[in-house]
Amino acid sequence: MNSEIRKTLEAVKNGELSVDDALLAIKKEPFEDIGYAKVDLHRGIRQGAAEVIYGAGKTPEQMVGIIGAMLEHEVKTILITRLSEEKAEKIQKTYPQMDYRKDAKIGTIGQFPAADGLGKIVVATAGTSDIPVAEEAALTAEAHGNEVVRLYDVGVAGLHRLLAHMDEIMSASVIIAIAGMEGALASVIGGLADCPVIAVPTSIGYGASFGGVSALLSMLNSCASGVSVVNIDNGFGAGYLASMINHITEGKKS
Amino acid sequence: MNSEIRKTLEAVKNGELSVDDALLAIKKEPFEDIGYAKVDLHRGIRQGAAEVIYGAGKTPEQMVGIIGAMLEHEVKTILITRLSEEKAEKIQKTYPQMDYRKDAKIGTIGQFPAADGLGKIVVATAGTSDIPVAEEAALTAEAHGNEVVRLYDVGVAGLHRLLAHMDEIMSASVIIAIAGMEGALASVIGGLADCPVIAVPTSIGYGASFGGVSALLSMLNSCASGVSVVNIDNGFGAGYLASMINHITEGKKS
Amino acid sequence: MNSEIRKTLEAVKNGELSVDDALLAIKKEPFEDIGYAKVDLHRGIRQGAAEVIYGAGKTPEQMVGIIGAMLEHEVKTILITRLSEEKAEKIQKTYPQMDYRKDAKIGTIGQFPAADGLGKIVVATAGTSDIPVAEEAALTAEAHGNEVVRLYDVGVAGLHRLLAHMDEIMSASVIIAIAGMEGALASVIGGLADCPVIAVPTSIGYGASFGGVSALLSMLNSCASGVSVVNIDNGFGAGYLASMINHITEGKKS
Amino acid sequence: MNSEIRKTLEAVKNGELSVDDALLAIKKEPFEDIGYAKVDLHRGIRQGAAEVIYGAGKTPEQMVGIIGAMLEHEVKTILITRLSEEKAEKIQKTYPQMDYRKDAKIGTIGQFPAADGLGKIVVATAGTSDIPVAEEAALTAEAHGNEVVRLYDVGVAGLHRLLAHMDEIMSASVIIAIAGMEGALASVIGGLADCPVIAVPTSIGYGASFGGVSALLSMLNSCASGVSVVNIDNGFGAGYLASMINHITEGKKS
Amino acid sequence: MNSEIRKTLEAVKNGELSVDDALLAIKKEPFEDIGYAKVDLHRGIRQGAAEVIYGAGKTPEQMVGIIGAMLEHEVKTILITRLSEEKAEKIQKTYPQMDYRKDAKIGTIGQFPAADGLGKIVVATAGTSDIPVAEEAALTAEAHGNEVVRLYDVGVAGLHRLLAHMDEIMSASVIIAIAGMEGALASVIGGLADCPVIAVPTSIGYGASFGGVSALLSMLNSCASGVSVVNIDNGFGAGYLASMINHITEGKKS
Amino acid sequence: MNSEIRKTLEAVKNGELSVDDALLAIKKEPFEDIGYAKVDLHRGIRQGAAEVIYGAGKTPEQMVGIIGAMLEHEVKTILITRLSEEKAEKIQKTYPQMDYRKDAKIGTIGQFPAADGLGKIVVATAGTSDIPVAEEAALTAEAHGNEVVRLYDVGVAGLHRLLAHMDEIMSASVIIAIAGMEGALASVIGGLADCPVIAVPTSIGYGASFGGVSALLSMLNSCASGVSVVNIDNGFGAGYLASMINHITEGKKS
Amino acid sequence: MNSEIRKTLEAVKNGELSVDDALLAIKKEPFEDIGYAKVDLHRGIRQGAAEVIYGAGKTPEQMVGIIGAMLEHEVKTILITRLSEEKAEKIQKTYPQMDYRKDAKIGTIGQFPAADGLGKIVVATAGTSDIPVAEEAALTAEAHGNEVVRLYDVGVAGLHRLLAHMDEIMSASVIIAIAGMEGALASVIGGLADCPVIAVPTSIGYGASFGGVSALLSMLNSCASGVSVVNIDNGFGAGYLASMINHITEGKKS
Amino acid sequence: MNSEIRKTLEAVKNGELSVDDALLAIKKEPFEDIGYAKVDLHRGIRQGAAEVIYGAGKTPEQMVGIIGAMLEHEVKTILITRLSEEKAEKIQKTYPQMDYRKDAKIGTIGQFPAADGLGKIVVATAGTSDIPVAEEAALTAEAHGNEVVRLYDVGVAGLHRLLAHMDEIMSASVIIAIAGMEGALASVIGGLADCPVIAVPTSIGYGASFGGVSALLSMLNSCASGVSVVNIDNGFGAGYLASMINHITEGKKS
Repeated sequence: MNSEIRKTLEAVKNGELSVDDALLAIKKEPFEDIGYAKVDLHRGIRQGAAEVIYGAGKTPEQMVGIIGAMLEHEVKTILITRLSEEKAEKIQKTYPQMDYRKDAKIGTIGQFPAADGLGKIVVATAGTSDIPVAEEAALTAEAHGNEVVRLYDVGVAGLHRLLAHMDEIMSASVIIAIAGMEGALASVIGGLADCPVIAVPTSIGYGASFGGVSALLSMLNSCASGVSVVNIDNGFGAGYLASMINHITEGKKS
Repeated sequence: MNSEIRKTLEAVKNGELSVDDALLAIKKEPFEDIGYAKVDLHRGIRQGAAEVIYGAGKTPEQMVGIIGAMLEHEVKTILITRLSEEKAEKIQKTYPQMDYRKDAKIGTIGQFPAADGLGKIVVATAGTSDIPVAEEAALTAEAHGNEVVRLYDVGVAGLHRLLAHMDEIMSASVIIAIAGMEGALASVIGGLADCPVIAVPTSIGYGASFGGVSALLSMLNSCASGVSVVNIDNGFGAGYLASMINHITEGKKS
Repeated sequence: MNSEIRKTLEAVKNGELSVDDALLAIKKEPFEDIGYAKVDLHRGIRQGAAEVIYGAGKTPEQMVGIIGAMLEHEVKTILITRLSEEKAEKIQKTYPQMDYRKDAKIGTIGQFPAADGLGKIVVATAGTSDIPVAEEAALTAEAHGNEVVRLYDVGVAGLHRLLAHMDEIMSASVIIAIAGMEGALASVIGGLADCPVIAVPTSIGYGASFGGVSALLSMLNSCASGVSVVNIDNGFGAGYLASMINHITEGKKS
Repeated sequence: MNSEIRKTLEAVKNGELSVDDALLAIKKEPFEDIGYAKVDLHRGIRQGAAEVIYGAGKTPEQMVGIIGAMLEHEVKTILITRLSEEKAEKIQKTYPQMDYRKDAKIGTIGQFPAADGLGKIVVATAGTSDIPVAEEAALTAEAHGNEVVRLYDVGVAGLHRLLAHMDEIMSASVIIAIAGMEGALASVIGGLADCPVIAVPTSIGYGASFGGVSALLSMLNSCASGVSVVNIDNGFGAGYLASMINHITEGKKS
Repeated sequence: MNSEIRKTLEAVKNGELSVDDALLAIKKEPFEDIGYAKVDLHRGIRQGAAEVIYGAGKTPEQMVGIIGAMLEHEVKTILITRLSEEKAEKIQKTYPQMDYRKDAKIGTIGQFPAADGLGKIVVATAGTSDIPVAEEAALTAEAHGNEVVRLYDVGVAGLHRLLAHMDEIMSASVIIAIAGMEGALASVIGGLADCPVIAVPTSIGYGASFGGVSALLSMLNSCASGVSVVNIDNGFGAGYLASMINHITEGKKS
Repeated sequence: MNSEIRKTLEAVKNGELSVDDALLAIKKEPFEDIGYAKVDLHRGIRQGAAEVIYGAGKTPEQMVGIIGAMLEHEVKTILITRLSEEKAEKIQKTYPQMDYRKDAKIGTIGQFPAADGLGKIVVATAGTSDIPVAEEAALTAEAHGNEVVRLYDVGVAGLHRLLAHMDEIMSASVIIAIAGMEGALASVIGGLADCPVIAVPTSIGYGASFGGVSALLSMLNSCASGVSVVNIDNGFGAGYLASMINHITEGKKS
Repeated sequence: MNSEIRKTLEAVKNGELSVDDALLAIKKEPFEDIGYAKVDLHRGIRQGAAEVIYGAGKTPEQMVGIIGAMLEHEVKTILITRLSEEKAEKIQKTYPQMDYRKDAKIGTIGQFPAADGLGKIVVATAGTSDIPVAEEAALTAEAHGNEVVRLYDVGVAGLHRLLAHMDEIMSASVIIAIAGMEGALASVIGGLADCPVIAVPTSIGYGASFGGVSALLSMLNSCASGVSVVNIDNGFGAGYLASMINHITEGKKS
Repeated sequence: MNSEIRKTLEAVKNGELSVDDALLAIKKEPFEDIGYAKVDLHRGIRQGAAEVIYGAGKTPEQMVGIIGAMLEHEVKTILITRLSEEKAEKIQKTYPQMDYRKDAKIGTIGQFPAADGLGKIVVATAGTSDIPVAEEAALTAEAHGNEVVRLYDVGVAGLHRLLAHMDEIMSASVIIAIAGMEGALASVIGGLADCPVIAVPTSIGYGASFGGVSALLSMLNSCASGVSVVNIDNGFGAGYLASMINHITEGKKS
């Protein structure tokens, strides 16, 4: 942003831009205002990147509008998370090219880019019920150009199921550990692996799991190094961050 | 208790006991009232059993009084938990035979009985800081006639440290799993072992461990079967229960 | 597990097993991977034991698959907990031999084994509303070969109702105390009995019972010795642990 | 208060009072403003009643001032609760007639009135550590003219200790049930007695007792009828309310 | 209870009762076991008293059974609280004489007794939405022989509405103060009145009222003396306790 | 109120009012009792002011009654908040002139007054989902005579969207900052603006947002000066307070 | 800020400023970096305003440095809140002109400006223990040019004490209502007054007051309109906001 | 680990290792057992890496022992976090070469390695009080071979202070955002930067900050992508994870 201000200042200095236009430019650029939402496009600068729409609180009409604005700006891949089946059907009337993944509650428009990250992202879940959150993470990562390895139902109560996958764990560049209930998976994987572990507590469980609080606290208190945590059920956030880590050398070195 | 009522009723029927004496007997029997406390002696019926005094909220004078009443009733082994060093020193003026274990904050009077349980009780901790709670559990179990195996600092972030002790874990009759922070030890041990696991959350940790709440919730939500939980830092409770389980065949079969 | 590693190592040494086959063996053995779930069969080693499926988060199709894998491995008794009536009906289309207990939300396939535990397991509830949780505990215990005595609606506000059953309480080898609201039943039973008491808080109550938190805290803070706690509404966990305790002498002594 | 407004209005009507004096009267009457505190004297209207000062947040100087104002208004009995030993000593320099009860952290000035309530108030505690709160309740009740029966250390884990005092429980007009930890005493007494039970949770306990929260929730969720609850450690509140109930017929009938 | 034991003992002594019959008598007397519930009848001893059924967790069939057992024991007035309209209709098929009050979700069978308490019970609410809880309290009190004065919608944000009813407040023998949201009504009434105030927090409110927790805490922390608290929305508990206090002289004096 | 008492007292003195009528006047004046509610009209004294009905807990019939009483007292503008569509339709049968705003769940009767405040009130939201709460605030402010500027979807994760509106922020007389999730908007606006900021946490979010608690705590802990907070989702409260501040010079100076 | 950018842009256009200098200017202006802290001076633009230092987490040396930077920039009045006595004495060695108010834990340097607000700010407390917070609020307001009226110890349990001050309440332009325990003062004042009420919960109380949480929730749920809340014990925040409201007409109208 | 098992299996096959030695090797390798602790050395495999000791719960003697074991294994850099000044002095008696950083409560032994990460790690704090946590993070990162840029006291209430450092923020490879109170810094930085942001809530704050809970929830709910969270005050965890991310290409690609 700073460099954009510099460019604008240079343009003003060179007489290429009036003061008022400069002010306008600073204000208007990085998003398009479509009334009920300001469609954020600043990630679109990097050629080919995906944009993600959080579908939970939006009407189908709002989402159709946002998709339209994105397509106009030539966004190549669009992911819509937390998308119910009914809403998906309404969107598909306008955009029949949208693919809907019922288990992950995700709609996708456009091709997924080829994987170009540093390594593989492992997505592991403690149980079968954690799979929807895991798919949200996995698809987000794939949509941003990552190879994803899925290890589902490898919870710590049956340690052998996890240990059977030591190869995948040891060769991952980032691991997303997803668990509800007591959330111990993140600590155990964190102790085994030597790469960053992103822990995702899920709301799976009952009684004193308090909708994911038990797993959340477990993960925050992990005695393993290299573990950090995102919000309960936040598969998207984990997938996005994992992708960011997996692409980290791009242009940061110099 | 019911059978005591029956005995008393029989005695009344047989004229051996007046109605008023019967009433008195029912009221008075199983404890001795020493004013500020009702010294509970009903566990003393079983020959040679230990009695345990919870030292935290009591003055040295009160404890001296309770010890006196117990010795008079020929209690063989007395354990005083949560006993600070200053209080211990004051008690030792009256009862110099009391042994004080500073690390476990426990005072003991009398010999420990020989181990006569079904098997061994394993006491495992996740970290070094959990040892005081573990010693409270271990000494309680030993005072009640159990052989105890200590496995300290075997937390799940270094799984190899735990797996190195599979022999002890597989051959235990009861395991006490003690951990603060994320409390995952109970789940992992619960998944490995095939005996009852008593989980003790500790107040070790900081930040979002909330004085043991994180570990407590973890343990309550354990996805491993056969795990139950006692109060935070309740080493005594775990040791007592483990001993009860380890002596379970005595007289219950017929 | 350790001894299995030893056996495998011996086999490798003797040339009976290649290194790669050994690795494969270690990884594959104790569970069968059916895609969406890893069916755990390591408890099936002991002849005749029951397997329990937690039905809450699973689709009927997934459960049919898991049942199939279990039957193929000759599991004799299958219990499906937290099973809604609709799901049960769908499963019964494939497995009409499944019995459905509506009050306990439990489906059962196969015969229950004869009771072969050390003694009787008493399942006591404070109120009528706690019965579904109690039945989950009782059926779990019965499916694992235990004799169960049910004492329902014996809450402490009417102490006479509980005291009327002193015989059962005094002769139990394990007691499961189930209560919502203030959860005092566990403490009172814990004070009366001389066997392990497994306390199950239930979500029964309103207002400041906070979905079982009040009972949970009560039970964790029980001033009676020998009481431990499982998760809110976790009837299965209590029944399984009680069975484990009730069978504890099997092979642990030497 | 309404009737006082009426009297003042009558006086204005009769010309006995100017409008400004009437306004002044309404404002000034029921308390005396001594700068840092408004000493409340409206309970002093009833002849002979005690006044209670909450000592926790006040300096010795402030308390000396308040005592002085009270003595000037001929308050017969003054109780100062939550009074530390140091503060007590400082107050005794001005008011050497103040009695200090160290165990209850209470100072008293003046004679206690003769008991003139409907019946006896029973003050029961679960443990020895609850006694300071109990004494605060008992002394408050005695200072307001009640006969108090103390039943200490009768917690539910040793039910026989409580049942031994059925006579006192059945003949009480009000019972104050004081307990920390799991707080079950209130429910059990509530189920046995047929008089109002005021439950006082105490901060006694550790771990998941959360400074009295566990006992508080237990008591609020009591399944026994006739139980109500005051704040954690609020012995004064319970004693005052018990006295109010025990004096209830005075002048309310007609 | 104690005196009943004495009577039984006397009978045994006199040979009027065998030991076994005595044991049986002690166990069986104060309730009737109808399988799924133990109908408590010990309050029915006092001639004419009402019995109350908590309808929330019970099926219509269970309630019909309980009503039947009560009518057989000649209970004069039956109150069923937390009774939904559908359940009420089903019960009315068997007991068409049941009256159903939709606003209070209460069914009543039999006549209400004449008011014979010491004075009037005032039931006050902060808002209109608190009325269902208030009616549960008021009807419970009326069913137990009390005169009730209703003061609805007198919350402290409009203090004049409350002050307009000073007459009723000053002449009450007990006041039930019912409020959700910030729950200040109990403190203000407690400061004005000179009789016991039973505070009932309600779950009315939104956001940070947390289902009644805000009001509950407010009431527990009331700076007014003479205030005690029952569970959130527990109108029945407040009405029952108020009646108990309002009838307190009966037989307690001597 | 005090001055009204004075006037009444003067009238009594002058013989214009009997004592009983004076008492009655004090009691009756500022509200009208329509049975199930006391319609508050004391804000109606200021000519032309709006009255607001909180629609959440009221039946359509009750609201029709309250509207009627208000119209009779010539209230010019009526706002009904938290009004569901079904209830709105029922009310419109009696008052077809009611306008219903579905997005804000608000019904309005009568014209909105001209804006006569000191300046403009800015209503800003972090996201699109916060708009219903924002409209409740904005309409409340407009109904009370304020000019409102809406800045929606300007959350801090896209700071440029907020900075693009520095003109509106710097020229506001009051700002209402509405945000769910992490609630950072209030702090950032509070740091930028030099006018009072009213923060409204919303229940928008999932997982560890705990229904608005996360945003609430954020806002209470704002490190920016001049920020205060209202209840979660309390758009009305913020709008009303903003209007109060924006009209503050009226008659307070002298 | 926007207009400053505009000025800078104009200067660049006019050749008065190089691009690099412009960038520097934008970055450097509004604060002075003294290494361990960035002294914020942007409020200093308005002639004569006070600056406030939050003393709690700072060393005396750091505060001396910050004071020095402020005095250099000719700040007229400096207030240091949460200042312990020891720290104050150390600061006074460098700045002997600093006045220290022990009760409020506040240090002041320089003269307080004349009151030039729209009206009076009333600071009211429920009890004596709330006074330190109240003084923090009052002194902050006075330091920013406001007349303050103090009403201490007017809690709602003695409503007459509050009603005696109706004149001050009705004539305030802003009221700061400070209370711990049940926090009802804010609601009652909010119902009586017709100006903005800033509620300050305090940590005064014990047991279920949870360090101010009870009062905080009460105040957030206030059923009175015009009430907003700041953090627990945040006297400064309330005083600053009250001053902001009391000076609101300055330059916002056009 | 898996490859180590393979190596061991190969050695057994080749007759280079007996079965018992193989078992021993698997158990013993990755840590050294010094009695009270199992010194973990498996990170020491990578040449030159630092080891970190968590000093909080350990005695000086224990730490001296652990340091000794590490030095023997030629660990080059040792960091001891949460080390109090007294303990540091005791350790320095044995290891005078230990450097002690009082502000960060960190002791260091050995040289820090040259920075060899992908880019720079920015450590930003909201306030001055957050610096100790920040230094723990910064030193941990430096000890693991990273270049660290410190941006302290750039909280969002003075946005200009943060925006003045856009260059550093835009060129970081990882950012650690440290804040107490409302924790908004993480969201704002997360919205500005395009690299992973590790958020560290601190326990700085008072009242409703609840020892860091407010900041923790804020950060978990961050609406900015690419933000993850570690435990409250966990500077070490953030620094370690940041280093892991900053070194991520090492050997993961192929």
